[in-house]
Amino acid sequence: MNIKITGIGHYLPEHIETSKELSAKINKSEDWIVSRTGVKERRVSKIDVDEMGAKAARISLKMANIKPDLILNASGVGKQVIPDTSVFFQRELGLNGIPSFSIHATCLSFLVALHAAANYIEQGSYNKILIISSDRGTRGRNYNEPESAALLGDAAAAIVLEKAVENENSKLLSYKMETWPQGANLTEVRGGGTNLHPQDNKTTLEDNLFSMNGPGIYKMARKKVYERLKEDLKENNLTPNDINLLIPHQASGLAVKAYSKYGGFDEKKVINIIDTTGNCVAASIPLALSIAYEQNKLKRGDLIYFAGTGAGLSIGSMLLKF
Amino acid sequence: MNIKITGIGHYLPEHIETSKELSAKINKSEDWIVSRTGVKERRVSKIDVDEMGAKAARISLKMANIKPDLILNASGVGKQVIPDTSVFFQRELGLNGIPSFSIHATCLSFLVALHAAANYIEQGSYNKILIISSDRGTRGRNYNEPESAALLGDAAAAIVLEKAVENENSKLLSYKMETWPQGANLTEVRGGGTNLHPQDNKTTLEDNLFSMNGPGIYKMARKKVYERLKEDLKENNLTPNDINLLIPHQASGLAVKAYSKYGGFDEKKVINIIDTTGNCVAASIPLALSIAYEQNKLKRGDLIYFAGTGAGLSIGSMLLKF
Repeated sequence: MNIKITGIGHYLPEHIETSKELSAKINKSEDWIVSRTGVKERRVSKIDVDEMGAKAARISLKMANIKPDLILNASGVGKQVIPDTSVFFQRELGLNGIPSFSIHATCLSFLVALHAAANYIEQGSYNKILIISSDRGTRGRNYNEPESAALLGDAAAAIVLEKAVENENSKLLSYKMETWPQGANLTEVRGGGTNLHPQDNKTTLEDNLFSMNGPGIYKMARKKVYERLKEDLKENNLTPNDINLLIPHQASGLAVKAYSKYGGFDEKKVINIIDTTGNCVAASIPLALSIAYEQNKLKRGDLIYFAGTGAGLSIGSMLLKF
Repeated sequence: MNIKITGIGHYLPEHIETSKELSAKINKSEDWIVSRTGVKERRVSKIDVDEMGAKAARISLKMANIKPDLILNASGVGKQVIPDTSVFFQRELGLNGIPSFSIHATCLSFLVALHAAANYIEQGSYNKILIISSDRGTRGRNYNEPESAALLGDAAAAIVLEKAVENENSKLLSYKMETWPQGANLTEVRGGGTNLHPQDNKTTLEDNLFSMNGPGIYKMARKKVYERLKEDLKENNLTPNDINLLIPHQASGLAVKAYSKYGGFDEKKVINIIDTTGNCVAASIPLALSIAYEQNKLKRGDLIYFAGTGAGLSIGSMLLKF
């Protein structure tokens, strides 16, 4: 599919919370946090996801210099149950009348939305698509679950996707997603829907906080991601050396390092931002893309391999010529 | 786009709650409820959205006689915040490894998902797509807001979408969506996300219940839906007589009747199920489709016009040759 990312931007909240600062709240040492999660510091937002997302979106829209004809929210957790967050992004951006909706696949929302957007563009249904991922995971931290509480950080990132014109080399080469419901309980926020409803008077604060079985996810995901990676390379007749940048979901320090340790990728090619941002849920992948772009690690025509996992458990991967 | 609905099914919970029964809970007479909302009775589910959706999905999968290669949840309110509800549908259906995610545009989720699915199929990205809308709006009824409490009902409906083969006349002819954020506060469930989080200890039960400004929505929506309808007919060179069935979102008795009263459509062509089902949020449109199909009001090649509104406020419409 002949699509091109014409705008990229991100927003990192100003306030930095170091793992030393966090250690008292979760009753673990700074060393425990850093060695267990790979996160030295993370951002904590004082503004809500709609304002965060709009800040990232403005940068991407300015770069692309367009008005979008579709706004996709591709975040892990919304501002509220109804309306979906895309509406609030559009309101923050001062726009009107532009079709807006949300795509939700937790940490894979961005990849799923990027693939959906490519289908729309190739088909001519929409031409200038704004995708925003904005997550404020620190709102849902459970201090009684130190590992996930230490992992989560806040960020927003956005891209504009358009049709690649003739002679441009930008394209989406391949995309795969699989969902394995036996992993449904490995990452949860159990409240906020029809399952555990406050009207039952039985819900607790913990029902509305992140619950992650880190080792369980790692065990299930590492094998499946590794198989996916091997197949993607084989099907596209590529070796790890052909990939210019590997942009993984920043699930944990261990998960990001596994791509070089087991996947055969040069560590320098794997974008690793988790030490300073934490796991920013769905914003994690586009944030890593935007930071790589800002740091001039990415140029037109580069072959990017995106890969990651989402609650479900889902595995997603994409090969994209930037 | 050459797509064909090859499977249809729905699930209506057994338990019927009449407006007479509801009247005491909301301190309004049966007459007030029926004249104000058009709802004489609605279903109240004892099972959760995933089980409801799976019941509808099984019927549609049996009719289509396929295994899906994509499962889309297209509901208004999820089972829980994470993972998204598509994962729980897949688990209930006993399936594994099938890519699954959610599309969220409140009451328009089904139309948005149907359009996305058509793009995927036309593009060859997926070939056998299961779309499930399952909403349990009665879980979020606010008895202090009699109108919305009386409107909401529970239901699930599902379709299977596939490529239309040669010589088949089934196709998606047109689709339009617009989102107007000045209507963002007309329909809300304010809790369940980062906005009003239980960790603030300031949230109330009401924050997690439906809040609808019925007259405000009707005022804003009637004009916009009417303009959309006129444009859709004009752009496709059609008159109301060319449409075999008009399937509107069952927003309220008044909203459904407006299509014949102001839109020039013969009342017999407008599927009106709200008196016995209420407003079933995103399940409302596919439920009306499935009931029309069950009642033999729909045959291959018929021209269907779907139209509706969603929180946002969004307007959506689709012309589809069944």
